[in-house]
Amino acid sequence: MQVAIMGFGTVGSGVAELILKNKNSITSRSGQKSFDIKYILDIRDFSSHQLANLFTKDFNDILNDKDVDVVVETMGGLEPAFEYVSKSLEAGKSVVTSNKELVAAKGYELLELAKKNNVNFLFEASVGGGIPIIRPINQCLAANETDEVAGILNGTTNFILTKMIDEGMDFDEALKLAQANGYAERDPSADILGHDAARKICILASLCFQKHVYPNEVQTEGITNITKEDVDYAKAWGGVIKLIGRAKKLESGKISATVGPCLIKNGCQLASVTDVFNAILVRGDAVGDVVFYGKGAGKFPTASAVVADVIDCAKHLEKRKLLGWGPAENDYVITPDEQSSSLYIRAAVADYNKTLNEINATFDGAQILNYEGASQTEISFITPLMNEKDAREKIAKLNLETKNILRVLDY
Amino acid sequence: MQVAIMGFGTVGSGVAELILKNKNSITSRSGQKSFDIKYILDIRDFSSHQLANLFTKDFNDILNDKDVDVVVETMGGLEPAFEYVSKSLEAGKSVVTSNKELVAAKGYELLELAKKNNVNFLFEASVGGGIPIIRPINQCLAANETDEVAGILNGTTNFILTKMIDEGMDFDEALKLAQANGYAERDPSADILGHDAARKICILASLCFQKHVYPNEVQTEGITNITKEDVDYAKAWGGVIKLIGRAKKLESGKISATVGPCLIKNGCQLASVTDVFNAILVRGDAVGDVVFYGKGAGKFPTASAVVADVIDCAKHLEKRKLLGWGPAENDYVITPDEQSSSLYIRAAVADYNKTLNEINATFDGAQILNYEGASQTEISFITPLMNEKDAREKIAKLNLETKNILRVLDY
Repeated sequence: MQVAIMGFGTVGSGVAELILKNKNSITSRSGQKSFDIKYILDIRDFSSHQLANLFTKDFNDILNDKDVDVVVETMGGLEPAFEYVSKSLEAGKSVVTSNKELVAAKGYELLELAKKNNVNFLFEASVGGGIPIIRPINQCLAANETDEVAGILNGTTNFILTKMIDEGMDFDEALKLAQANGYAERDPSADILGHDAARKICILASLCFQKHVYPNEVQTEGITNITKEDVDYAKAWGGVIKLIGRAKKLESGKISATVGPCLIKNGCQLASVTDVFNAILVRGDAVGDVVFYGKGAGKFPTASAVVADVIDCAKHLEKRKLLGWGPAENDYVITPDEQSSSLYIRAAVADYNKTLNEINATFDGAQILNYEGASQTEISFITPLMNEKDAREKIAKLNLETKNILRVLDY
Repeated sequence: MQVAIMGFGTVGSGVAELILKNKNSITSRSGQKSFDIKYILDIRDFSSHQLANLFTKDFNDILNDKDVDVVVETMGGLEPAFEYVSKSLEAGKSVVTSNKELVAAKGYELLELAKKNNVNFLFEASVGGGIPIIRPINQCLAANETDEVAGILNGTTNFILTKMIDEGMDFDEALKLAQANGYAERDPSADILGHDAARKICILASLCFQKHVYPNEVQTEGITNITKEDVDYAKAWGGVIKLIGRAKKLESGKISATVGPCLIKNGCQLASVTDVFNAILVRGDAVGDVVFYGKGAGKFPTASAVVADVIDCAKHLEKRKLLGWGPAENDYVITPDEQSSSLYIRAAVADYNKTLNEINATFDGAQILNYEGASQTEISFITPLMNEKDAREKIAKLNLETKNILRVLDY
């Protein structure tokens, strides 16, 4: 079997190295007689690379070569990835991608195209890097109806929050350290504003609930607004702040889809996920909660997922795998207003005791948070579990100078 | 497609209920036009059950019915399960089982029999209940060479240890509570002596390292010897005691396979697994550490895994799935003596300070443990990481009245 790799960046080069390193076991597990890389597409010059003879700058070399059974797309971005992947599928080649932007924006179209051409379009590496998650949801949990899927889906922001929690750094300091370590880009906005996590929750929600969810349907909030005070109040409550992507089936049959910093209790599986690690929780009606944990990014973890998909394509060269979802539906993804939530609020106060009394009069069972050294010019509390819209209206009526409102999760 | 269920106990009845409950989505995900239970085999009387017309007491009804494509074995035990499963495979029927005793003892034979008859033999539910683990190792991590697989594989003992850690119960008290809650059998020996976990680590090791590992090759120790003192010393060290099943590739190419109580540090993913939950860690050369967490037992979690396998059989009625391992090999599974370990020791002492000096003279870098209220008639310490055989010889020479020697893990 012959493979072409498009894009020789971190992931693409990891895919090539991994195939060469574990070639014997990979070939045997694929059920094929051979398992070879025939082309590597990259516009940059790799003429002195040890694999130099495999490189091409012309996508048509891959497209027109009948020997190429599987195309790996690790270029990233929407174009030309979308064009190349579409053409490859139309030419009867299976495609494996690690490109979450592509799957979140074009997943339904590409899955339909794969179906039409009787080939596979697999994307295990697009969520959670090396963590097995797409295939387990699709196959291992196939007997379940999913109630909820949620997780720590972005390693960069989890690293930043970990440094804020464990070492008392402020956001800017932790971001700089993430950049110095190569975890954050020079322009870190896709990570810290939550867009990367939003793409991933789209893919998970589409798979779990079987209708395509687009990034613009996800209520997305990043972590730039989180301060040391929030971290300390969360500690006083007995938990941590994590950036959580979450999609949840509501009683109406619709779903809510959000990305935002949330408070979660210490002791739950997501709370102990630190540094650049990711974890994804799936709540099924039969299985209950299952959690998948591991490295959500990086050269070899991501390559591990890509190559596993290539092996799966090799096993299914004649018969398609059943993997996919239906088109998006209007008004299917709704704002989380109608879900039950408990909210964390931090606000500036002029008169602490007066505000305290107003909060207690407004919310029966509000939990006031405090820690040693907390400023008396701020107040922080947690509402009881209630309709989120009602809670937000009540908070608005309190006329607080609100610094942060975060959801509190009950995992 | 027609399914037969053998054994209508907790798991078997869960399988039937789950198939009926989620019938539409299960049928659609199986790619079949229909998905029906044709027989339920049980020697007990279910004549007033709502599914009464499906029951039979005669295995030959199933064996001789050409319409039965997939047989589910949820009887447990070696016989007659082994006979019925063998005959089903020979008759060209795929088999799905939740029976860890069967897979640990007869896995290689049954996988060969399935291969010979071009059918599938699947056993996702045999390890970790509803947690996806067999398929992720076999497919999602297929690009990796596994270095190690380890986990909390038995919910009953994890419940007991959790009560000892969180509520200060002693072993007998916690065991009684586990029995009262239905988590432990009246004869709890298979759980508390580690035999159940040993069967599961056999299945995981066989799959990860590709040679059948039998339970009698696993160095197995239960938790009956663990006392509140051990729990408190572990806390003082900054960790917890968990019953860990573990198989590890050694430099020699052989593997060590053990089940026993171990110390692990708080903050690692396995340490926060409490109550009846299970978690399995797989260390791959490309992916690093991945952890799978969820309910390791119970009616619907286990049924979730069984039905997922049945759906997978339905998808692969014509083409076999590649899943299996080779025969056992002599002297392949060795005692853990030659691995590097750090050990925890608790011993009775006549003269605390004298023994302390001897320990420090024997182990360069020994960590002495202490907690408020610890008895001065005991001493507890942790050796540096070293060849385990050497460490045990040195401990023997100290002439201590040893109460417990446990491994310390570095996850």
